Amino acid sequence: MAEPRKQRTLGMLLFPRFELLDVCGPLEMFGHAEDAIRIVTVAEESGPVASTQRVGLIAETSFEDAPHLDLLLVPGGIGTRGEVDNADLLEWIADRGRQAEILASVCTGAALLARAGLLDGRRATTNKRSFAWVCEQGPRVQWIKQARWVEDANVFTSSGVAAGIDMALAVLARLFGQAWSEKLAETIEYEWHRDANWDPFARVHGLLP
Amino acid sequence: MAEPRKQRTLGMLLFPRFELLDVCGPLEMFGHAEDAIRIVTVAEESGPVASTQRVGLIAETSFEDAPHLDLLLVPGGIGTRGEVDNADLLEWIADRGRQAEILASVCTGAALLARAGLLDGRRATTNKRSFAWVCEQGPRVQWIKQARWVEDANVFTSSGVAAGIDMALAVLARLFGQAWSEKLAETIEYEWHRDANWDPFARVHGLLP
Repeated sequence: MAEPRKQRTLGMLLFPRFELLDVCGPLEMFGHAEDAIRIVTVAEESGPVASTQRVGLIAETSFEDAPHLDLLLVPGGIGTRGEVDNADLLEWIADRGRQAEILASVCTGAALLARAGLLDGRRATTNKRSFAWVCEQGPRVQWIKQARWVEDANVFTSSGVAAGIDMALAVLARLFGQAWSEKLAETIEYEWHRDANWDPFARVHGLLP
Repeated sequence: MAEPRKQRTLGMLLFPRFELLDVCGPLEMFGHAEDAIRIVTVAEESGPVASTQRVGLIAETSFEDAPHLDLLLVPGGIGTRGEVDNADLLEWIADRGRQAEILASVCTGAALLARAGLLDGRRATTNKRSFAWVCEQGPRVQWIKQARWVEDANVFTSSGVAAGIDMALAVLARLFGQAWSEKLAETIEYEWHRDANWDPFARVHGLLP
């Protein structure tokens, strides 16, 4: 679908017990940009990394060997509960996140961005079921209870799991235009929630009265 | 989320250039059944298999070594264009599909079920952009133009890519009840299209006037 343009490199962070759809929903979307976006999966060490759903993805490169990343995407999953105390991982996210044109998280991945100091003073959202825990990871963040995703300058943070797909289409719309993302959604037969404020789950999970 | 019950084994077929979300959307859903469903990724040979989006998944077992499969799920993707002529793969699908309690396809995966003879005389659907090509693979199938997914006895076939998520929730609803799938959709903040007849994409892609 992509037209010729500057190639960007997207780094997708992997860690043990990442949430499978947090990673593969957005990667499906970015993968349709073909040569305009080169996808690189990155973990502390290269090789297979098991998701919470047990199915493994392959990290192509280690933190050390990763190329410059124009886009950095950080997923959530139950593994974040341990990774918020992984100093090497947080340092890598802080370093690569500050250099990135666009920085994004899905679900509880926002906890990792917060602990890396990348959300201080910013508006952000996250998973609605784990909202309280994520907020504790970033006391200087303006956490938004009701949002499918939040854009603050070059930082995109999405709500839980499936919301990452809607946010990925919004990132692609910023890069390539709204019509590009509309067409992609039609191609893959996906009903895109285009409105970042659409969020029935904040109420479902008790964040709103 | 799962309560104690009989453990079933779900085999997810992988082949080169499968569509990433065809596989990982449903696996995210079935993965939440925890111990009630054991997920096994299967390919002609075990090891890494590259998706159309280039990101690789790991096939845990080969056709030969795969255990008995209670559920067999066949994804689509551009790789199906070659696999419809892969006699070994079609024979394996026919053999395992006939033994399965539930057989399912996402997107153009229906072309592989059709070529394996498993859809003859049945109602089925598939990707709306590749509808004509898939129909050619199964002249004795009653192809349904407008459907998010189709259930015919124990055979579930879904429309393109994202529709596989809705179908997976329908399969889980049949196994564990509607309330189970409703709760899962809330957990992962997914707006489930519960109505198998919801399908705006048939018109978008010119199958309806």
